[in-house]
Amino acid sequence: MAADVLACADRRGVDSHGVARLRSYAELLAGGKINPRPVLRLVRETASTATVDGDNGLGLVVGPKVNEMAMDKAERAGTGWAVIRNSNHFGIAGYYPLRALERGMIGWAMTNSSPGVAPLWGAERMLGTNPIAIAFPAEKETPIVIDMATSTVAYGKIEMAEREGAPIPEGWAVDREGQATTDPAAILQGGALLPLGSDREHGGHKGYCLALMVDVLSGVLSGANWGPFTPSFTLRGDPPLRSVGQGLGHFFGAMRVDAFREGAEFRAQIDDFVRTLRNTRPAPGTKGPLIPGDPEREAEEERARGGIPLLPAVVEDLCEVSRQTGVPFE
Amino acid sequence: MAADVLACADRRGVDSHGVARLRSYAELLAGGKINPRPVLRLVRETASTATVDGDNGLGLVVGPKVNEMAMDKAERAGTGWAVIRNSNHFGIAGYYPLRALERGMIGWAMTNSSPGVAPLWGAERMLGTNPIAIAFPAEKETPIVIDMATSTVAYGKIEMAEREGAPIPEGWAVDREGQATTDPAAILQGGALLPLGSDREHGGHKGYCLALMVDVLSGVLSGANWGPFTPSFTLRGDPPLRSVGQGLGHFFGAMRVDAFREGAEFRAQIDDFVRTLRNTRPAPGTKGPLIPGDPEREAEEERARGGIPLLPAVVEDLCEVSRQTGVPFE
Repeated sequence: MAADVLACADRRGVDSHGVARLRSYAELLAGGKINPRPVLRLVRETASTATVDGDNGLGLVVGPKVNEMAMDKAERAGTGWAVIRNSNHFGIAGYYPLRALERGMIGWAMTNSSPGVAPLWGAERMLGTNPIAIAFPAEKETPIVIDMATSTVAYGKIEMAEREGAPIPEGWAVDREGQATTDPAAILQGGALLPLGSDREHGGHKGYCLALMVDVLSGVLSGANWGPFTPSFTLRGDPPLRSVGQGLGHFFGAMRVDAFREGAEFRAQIDDFVRTLRNTRPAPGTKGPLIPGDPEREAEEERARGGIPLLPAVVEDLCEVSRQTGVPFE
Repeated sequence: MAADVLACADRRGVDSHGVARLRSYAELLAGGKINPRPVLRLVRETASTATVDGDNGLGLVVGPKVNEMAMDKAERAGTGWAVIRNSNHFGIAGYYPLRALERGMIGWAMTNSSPGVAPLWGAERMLGTNPIAIAFPAEKETPIVIDMATSTVAYGKIEMAEREGAPIPEGWAVDREGQATTDPAAILQGGALLPLGSDREHGGHKGYCLALMVDVLSGVLSGANWGPFTPSFTLRGDPPLRSVGQGLGHFFGAMRVDAFREGAEFRAQIDDFVRTLRNTRPAPGTKGPLIPGDPEREAEEERARGGIPLLPAVVEDLCEVSRQTGVPFE
């Protein structure tokens, strides 16, 4: 199940969330930080909701199961909403709504994550990059698949700029004093990413609102840790100052389209919407707007033909995991 | 009911959405463009969902009723999700989740709106400023009340800059060719607002995703018009090129907190989260992060003491409405 989630990321071109992370997961399992045999416990439920304790399992395994529960609820009640606490990193958020698409449903996924983002007007890391994913099925056109962090950019982009010795654009991050900076090293040394919108003038308060919304729905509603107390994904990084819940939290949703209107009608309208957006007059120097999910679909087609390129460092990591676990890597 | 929604905006300092709009609504009613006696029709329902035809009623009247339906569904099924088509402008989005707070619930509201925003890399108006509102109850601290457009700024800010003859910041909008511009007149003459995030480098694709998400949930799911075909709020503005549904669409959601975890526990955690965020080390030159809803709460306290200031032009409009309708204005 975990392999399916990781391979999904690699197939779709989201290299940062694929097998490149396998060594981290293996270390956490080997170090006893993650429970390799979690027993999910249903804590509370109603006709359309479920709250689950993930027993400190791998998010890549307990996440998909709770996502299924949301869809099963939706089959009966029209919509289903399942939250899980005591989980760990669950891979790419987009994996989950893609499962809902397979069942003809609208799917939602959110998760909180270790703090790396400053709220607008804050000088320290209080929130994660807390992604929102949602997907809408189409009939003949490509479905709409949204998967976005609520920060301006991913943390990985800062690390990449630092390795290249390149400055980053203004509006991405602040240094440890909360001052705007274009120096990636200043961010890695105690600075923070900025929420989507960057500054007050460009709507940074809105990105902050979204990150907080995701944290409350994933973390607080489930009984997980939240905000600055959300644990790190890896063995590196300082432990949180205090515990306010259990592990990480995720939020999954599923909506049966025909709970709202005829499925075929809805999908035909999505087709029409997709075509309408593709026919938008392009801005100068561009090919016009994309449909959310286009870049990942393009990567998937390309990689289905040409295979998935792995960085030498990732291959080394996989060999190391193979040596330590005895699982062959070919 | 409409007065309650409009007064809520004025009390909370959102002058653009309060009685300043009454004349527009009155004109639409007088011109027969809005049905003054709508009969709501339940088109479809499940345990947790409802789809309603608003009979071309005033959004300020049919919106609150359908919001109540979402909450009533939530009482029984844990969560409730109600969409409405064939509606009109519904006032401030934040009004609706505030009603959910009164019932101890988490409330959601979204609406689509007439096109004013270009998708990233587009040179024309394809989406509305499509707001997202959501509120979470607290115990002793202030609740978290999010109400945000998914564009960088509201259209009103462009109009204000034009009246003042002032340039606008980069990243807010494009001209009719899709070129970035700081000239408010160029936007009013066929340009477009940019989605939250502004450009590719700062996450403009994410704001575009959010605006699209709101449009699908409000417009497509309900059977309303969507995207560039969403009708204008007023008698001004060109009619859409074609009809793809009925009127405007809204999306309302309600979640019973105790469907997920003990209500008192949840609210105590929100209190803790609010205090934690208020204690964030402030960025230089600021007083530190706000809690979503703070500016509106401050305005509400101030206006409860000092009354609500009205611009002379608004007072004139209200006098005009009074003359035309015979309803006294004192």
